[in-house]
Amino acid sequence: MTAPNQEALADYTQDVARKAKSASRKLTALTGNQKSGWLLELASAIDSRKAELVQANQLDIDKAPEYGLNNAAIDRLRLTEVRLAGIVESLHQISTLTDPIGEVIQSQLRPNGIRVSQVRVPLGVVFFIYESRPNVTIDAAALCVKSGNAVILRGGKEAFHSNMAFYKIVADSLEKQGLPREAVQLVETTDRDAVGHFLKRHDLIDVTIPRGGRSLIERVTDEATMPVIKHFDGICHVYVDESADLKMAENIIINSKTHRPGVCNAAETLLVHEAVAERFLKQAGPALLNLGVELRGCRRTCQILEKAVPATEEDFRTEYLDLILSVKVVDDLTAAVEHINEHGSHHTDAIVTSQLAAAEEFQVNVDSAAVMVNASTRFNDGGEFGFGAEIGISTDKFHARGPCGLRELTSYKYLVQGSGQTRS
Amino acid sequence: MTAPNQEALADYTQDVARKAKSASRKLTALTGNQKSGWLLELASAIDSRKAELVQANQLDIDKAPEYGLNNAAIDRLRLTEVRLAGIVESLHQISTLTDPIGEVIQSQLRPNGIRVSQVRVPLGVVFFIYESRPNVTIDAAALCVKSGNAVILRGGKEAFHSNMAFYKIVADSLEKQGLPREAVQLVETTDRDAVGHFLKRHDLIDVTIPRGGRSLIERVTDEATMPVIKHFDGICHVYVDESADLKMAENIIINSKTHRPGVCNAAETLLVHEAVAERFLKQAGPALLNLGVELRGCRRTCQILEKAVPATEEDFRTEYLDLILSVKVVDDLTAAVEHINEHGSHHTDAIVTSQLAAAEEFQVNVDSAAVMVNASTRFNDGGEFGFGAEIGISTDKFHARGPCGLRELTSYKYLVQGSGQTRS
Repeated sequence: MTAPNQEALADYTQDVARKAKSASRKLTALTGNQKSGWLLELASAIDSRKAELVQANQLDIDKAPEYGLNNAAIDRLRLTEVRLAGIVESLHQISTLTDPIGEVIQSQLRPNGIRVSQVRVPLGVVFFIYESRPNVTIDAAALCVKSGNAVILRGGKEAFHSNMAFYKIVADSLEKQGLPREAVQLVETTDRDAVGHFLKRHDLIDVTIPRGGRSLIERVTDEATMPVIKHFDGICHVYVDESADLKMAENIIINSKTHRPGVCNAAETLLVHEAVAERFLKQAGPALLNLGVELRGCRRTCQILEKAVPATEEDFRTEYLDLILSVKVVDDLTAAVEHINEHGSHHTDAIVTSQLAAAEEFQVNVDSAAVMVNASTRFNDGGEFGFGAEIGISTDKFHARGPCGLRELTSYKYLVQGSGQTRS
Repeated sequence: MTAPNQEALADYTQDVARKAKSASRKLTALTGNQKSGWLLELASAIDSRKAELVQANQLDIDKAPEYGLNNAAIDRLRLTEVRLAGIVESLHQISTLTDPIGEVIQSQLRPNGIRVSQVRVPLGVVFFIYESRPNVTIDAAALCVKSGNAVILRGGKEAFHSNMAFYKIVADSLEKQGLPREAVQLVETTDRDAVGHFLKRHDLIDVTIPRGGRSLIERVTDEATMPVIKHFDGICHVYVDESADLKMAENIIINSKTHRPGVCNAAETLLVHEAVAERFLKQAGPALLNLGVELRGCRRTCQILEKAVPATEEDFRTEYLDLILSVKVVDDLTAAVEHINEHGSHHTDAIVTSQLAAAEEFQVNVDSAAVMVNASTRFNDGGEFGFGAEIGISTDKFHARGPCGLRELTSYKYLVQGSGQTRS
């Protein structure tokens, strides 16, 4: 579909959102078995229709240079037999996760004999906006429906044909399993304005989840009239305390920085207590440089490491997503905590220490979604936290913080069971 | 303080919000004992400074006719010895509630040996806007600080002197107990525009809670750039099923409608299954009329009850907050659920039934914060649910739904404890 004008776009998006709301009502009452049955059906359909998917994906790959995608981006876009097998495997895994819906979070028998139970229910309709990798289409559909939500998927134009091919299979499998076909809808226009229309419909959409670059997240946050689950940046820190095991600290900063530099839980800044700065930087600095990491240091860092280049104030507020690391020598733990709360993005921060009191002080005072002691920042991840899968990571404090899995896609209601009680 | 212009107002609100943020950092680390100590100190200070409070309150009472307050409103505004004793008692009660901060919501030892714990932390800074009753000043201060949050209080102009008098006592007690004085701040201007300035500061304020009339809530929802905990209306229903014990149903609708008609969990609409409509309405109708309730009925209701006046479609979407009840005869349970989801406000709805299947169908499908079986809608309340106290009721699905007590004023963070683990 191409949108002739704003009015048609408003009609189209309203129609999609209404269908989603109506489907979400039916999803509320599905059993876990019905949802798992659909996930397995979808897995088997993807498995048997691989050729179709690879073919559709080729159309996107062919068009990629037009969109100015570089080789790394084209690689992320590509669907191969191996990657499709990974998607099938991930659906099997999601099917085995405990259904969050219906969970009794707490239940009390009150003195007057009424039972008050807090019971987990779906949020309703999720508007999910994402870029690049087409496997996200299936991940998001699976997680939303498993948690009883209808989802409106808005993928990037670079993956349009791949997403459409996935969507066809999803729709077929929903129908085959007797689930509402509109539980999952893919926005069939790449018109940018469509997003704006959806973001106005807080009457029909319960939450928007954008996943992509900062400009996308900013646009969504500005325009959305409903709650948004998001994070802007991952400016993550590793702080090496004076009491740190320096070999452990070296391993942790190397892993946090270089394991996958392009992701949000990679470290961007190293803070070192002045008492161990010289010893630690002379040991870990060359190791990082050898791994191709550019070091941008404060004045004291540059005095210790002559291969470090001077860092600007801006460097300490930058998410490089690359093999670059800001390095700062700090006076003490308090200064480290202040630097993190001031310059970081409240995402993931780690301390390396052998002192219990230092670990506690750091964990209480660093105001981030995940605070690590003696572990790599890379562990802030739904899979690593045992959620089975994640739809994103939140740096907000409201509703959901940190990795968002099935539970974070739910709300609750209070069910009250009485036998005629009235209030006096 | 009176605001000479917008710039001064912007400066003033920024200063207040910054102080709140700074205080909130210190509150994070307070122990439960420190917080309870302050609550008891505050209770004893209010107890010993009753005369001062009654005197300040008299200034508001004297001014009330100027603000056009009617007798009921003036009564709500008044602080008496008995009411002050109630406030003191409520502080004692809040001091005994379990501190939500530091609660381990869940904790897993992952296969690689890292421990991942989800631990409850404060939200940060709460902006609380309320009207009329000055006791809310103390309630809100107590609940926010007990849950580790700093709070900015913005009361109504009608209660300005009473609120200021409470605030002085609060500030003194914070100081006396060594808590940050700016943990609680009262906005010292009645300028309406101050609210707008605060609502822009999502960088410093974590959540806004408005409590008052619909126009206040709408303004706050429109202008707020941070999350809002709120409800617009309480259009609550009682549905009398064909299987209902009709005497029980009569008690429940009478209690739900007349126990306190001016509050949000009072019933506004009665739905009756057609199979019992004649019998039930002929029994409960006169009882309601005798209690002074005006009945506005659908066509079928008016055929049964000649004293009912015809209801308009608008009546079924109205929160009367008065002794008026809309009445509709419905074909069946499904029609009742549809009517509620379509006309209600997702607040509190009740079914009266003796059938298990009917109760279940109603509880699963009615999309409201609290769904009652054989109990009065009046039970949707933090106190009745065992929360000890509430700061408001939410009809949103995001973050908090239903009565909001201490837990709903919190977030969480993930604490990860490792021994040098890195990701491979």
